[in-house]
Amino acid sequence: MGIQGIVHGFSKLSREDQIQLLREFTGNPVSLEAHLNDHRLQDSKWQGVYDSFSENAVSNFFLPYCIAPNFRIDNRFYFVPMVTEESSVVAAASSAAKFWSERGGFHTRVSSVNKPGHIHFTWNGSPEEISSFVTGLIPGLHKATSMLTRNMKKRGGGITDIQLIDRTATLEGYYQIEVMFNTVDSMGANFINSCLERMAAFIGKQVELAGISDRFSIVMAILSNYTPQCTVECSIACDPDRLSHPAYGMNGLEFARKFEFAVNISRQDTHRAVTHNKGIYNGIDAVVIATGNDFRAVEADGHAFAARDGKYRGLTEVEVYPDSFSCKIEIPISIGTIGGLTRLHPLAAVSLEILGNPDVPKLMSIASAAGLACNFSAVRSLITGGIQSGHMHMHLSNILHQLQADPEEKKAAVAYFREHTVSYAEVEVFLTGMRTRVAQTRKR
Amino acid sequence: MGIQGIVHGFSKLSREDQIQLLREFTGNPVSLEAHLNDHRLQDSKWQGVYDSFSENAVSNFFLPYCIAPNFRIDNRFYFVPMVTEESSVVAAASSAAKFWSERGGFHTRVSSVNKPGHIHFTWNGSPEEISSFVTGLIPGLHKATSMLTRNMKKRGGGITDIQLIDRTATLEGYYQIEVMFNTVDSMGANFINSCLERMAAFIGKQVELAGISDRFSIVMAILSNYTPQCTVECSIACDPDRLSHPAYGMNGLEFARKFEFAVNISRQDTHRAVTHNKGIYNGIDAVVIATGNDFRAVEADGHAFAARDGKYRGLTEVEVYPDSFSCKIEIPISIGTIGGLTRLHPLAAVSLEILGNPDVPKLMSIASAAGLACNFSAVRSLITGGIQSGHMHMHLSNILHQLQADPEEKKAAVAYFREHTVSYAEVEVFLTGMRTRVAQTRKR
Repeated sequence: MGIQGIVHGFSKLSREDQIQLLREFTGNPVSLEAHLNDHRLQDSKWQGVYDSFSENAVSNFFLPYCIAPNFRIDNRFYFVPMVTEESSVVAAASSAAKFWSERGGFHTRVSSVNKPGHIHFTWNGSPEEISSFVTGLIPGLHKATSMLTRNMKKRGGGITDIQLIDRTATLEGYYQIEVMFNTVDSMGANFINSCLERMAAFIGKQVELAGISDRFSIVMAILSNYTPQCTVECSIACDPDRLSHPAYGMNGLEFARKFEFAVNISRQDTHRAVTHNKGIYNGIDAVVIATGNDFRAVEADGHAFAARDGKYRGLTEVEVYPDSFSCKIEIPISIGTIGGLTRLHPLAAVSLEILGNPDVPKLMSIASAAGLACNFSAVRSLITGGIQSGHMHMHLSNILHQLQADPEEKKAAVAYFREHTVSYAEVEVFLTGMRTRVAQTRKR
Repeated sequence: MGIQGIVHGFSKLSREDQIQLLREFTGNPVSLEAHLNDHRLQDSKWQGVYDSFSENAVSNFFLPYCIAPNFRIDNRFYFVPMVTEESSVVAAASSAAKFWSERGGFHTRVSSVNKPGHIHFTWNGSPEEISSFVTGLIPGLHKATSMLTRNMKKRGGGITDIQLIDRTATLEGYYQIEVMFNTVDSMGANFINSCLERMAAFIGKQVELAGISDRFSIVMAILSNYTPQCTVECSIACDPDRLSHPAYGMNGLEFARKFEFAVNISRQDTHRAVTHNKGIYNGIDAVVIATGNDFRAVEADGHAFAARDGKYRGLTEVEVYPDSFSCKIEIPISIGTIGGLTRLHPLAAVSLEILGNPDVPKLMSIASAAGLACNFSAVRSLITGGIQSGHMHMHLSNILHQLQADPEEKKAAVAYFREHTVSYAEVEVFLTGMRTRVAQTRKR
């Protein structure tokens, strides 16, 4: 470890000099530079596109770009692009997608694409006075942002509402001006923040003109990633008889009831809810990333929504009757199909093309279906053979790679672990045993 | 859109045939195949590593692999690898890292790396009877998993506790056997699930032997990604005087108080809390991904933790006194430095090397510092010049790329937007104006 101190001007160094510093810092391993270089595109135009995304980009991090076929969503079939590093997510999604495509598919409904932003401020005075002041500001707020909202209005969106919210019960003197935006086919973060900051500047001037700057103070102006008005509902349903499988050891209705109980556990127990929802986001994030959207925004939004009634709960709900099984999810998903990196990232653009260039509600539907598919697969595995048989057999190939198994060893391991639980330790023991036997045979 | 129906055996097709199907489905665009091919590694050995991660992997999705310098964490300096598609995250993290490295740096403390898993079951009988039955099982549960826990024990981990939890108040007849695991330097998901499933199989046999299988029924056995015992605390502190800056228009203590108020808003208002925490996870996830860990698990864990007292709150807390400012975050982070993809993903291995091959508590510290750095930068921007000036100037280069600006136009736009708010609309108007002027000049 070479450098123990502050490096000045790192972001202004060339990529080569940045890597040289890293090499010195890590004791100059040759493999570091080779790996960073090997993951770059030869075509400097395309590599330049990736480099423009972030400061200090020295290479590209690869995640598998995968295709989950057979998604039938609102009666249309999709190949769904999914980006995930987790083995078995794509297999699980595809399996559930095919299963449900034979049972009517996924049915979705989007509430709206409206999102809020806030100008947070403090006010030392009466609620009536500030209410009247803010009401008077509204036409000016629209006017001050007219240049920014012009394009959005052309596309059918813009500012849909401006309201004062009294939050003085939570913090002394704290109020919000809540602005609602319809961002149509963009996620809209930059648009919303630009509008809010321009509004804040306008308000600052009006506050001075009104001579109340000693009592009115803006804290900040920022979009909210909590979008409970921008939700999608996705559901699957069939006759319980159609859920049965010879391997399950129970009939369709028994399976449905057990499935219901497992989902109800996630509604009641936070420990289970977190893993239940994590599995849902395995699917959602894979689509969100594949289309160039921001998964941190989608995650924070969804998990806060999961806790909206004061308890963090699983996001799916099941209803079972003797003649019907249904499972649904309702979640907020704020994403775009234009703007941000959606068209700029070369493979995000490919994803949108594979999906038939959907609008935002359609993309919300697809992402929610991917989430529900992963959830169905996970719960189905958990209540039947367990999650590990599927997951670990996918993971087995990773472990075999890591232990540098040759093709013959891989074949033998796959056969052996059909009947044995996969774990790193047991794969290691198996391979060591196999290698020892081979070595002994050779000696003879 | 060609195929309207179910595709059978997609995962068994060669990559070439999978892409051929996609081409037919999307109306055969040439660019699709070219893009998917261009993003593959020429070296088939390394490409094979990526292909082994997931089913139906047809290409690699690129995310910028970036370096944030100047992280001083527990008095040691780090270059922190961050993988993120969001412009300004790395710049924001680096800026805060440098700022705080000159003020003592980040100080961290890890509680433990213990994680729970559960065997969920129903019991129709008295609590005393099941309690005595489960207590009797415990030695057998340890024995049944001894092969699986052997390697983990050698490394200092294993099963640390087994307890029965009565959940009948939430669902009729519902109990859990909670098993606590110390997974040392692995995230441990596969290890925990393998142990739990073997325990469940063992319990199933014991239930039969005891003749209580009509009253005892296992629902599922699965790890929990909710890990409130596996937390890290990270803090920064300095004299408020050292927070001042000529551009802020306030002194250090005023800045500290305004910062505190902004953070307190996130503690009280869910709309603000979601975005506040989203910004924290911009930093955490970038490190989690760069080191081959599972960000869905980390996100779900952290956001449920943010709602643990019944209200979803911001994850940071601030204390201000006339002579001290401090800001801290406490969050669960369940990650590994061995196992999973941490060593298998070529660039994840590089990341761990750049970080000096940390153990898990150290990596938790680094990830939490990246999160706190992003949070500090975001709140500092919000309460001073606004988030957009920094963020949008990073985003400006993306928009200019998208609008195919040439070098001269880029230079002019960067100069112009130093004084104007960046938005897609305004950049478009600016470029159109510039191009019209150039065209007119040429005509003359």
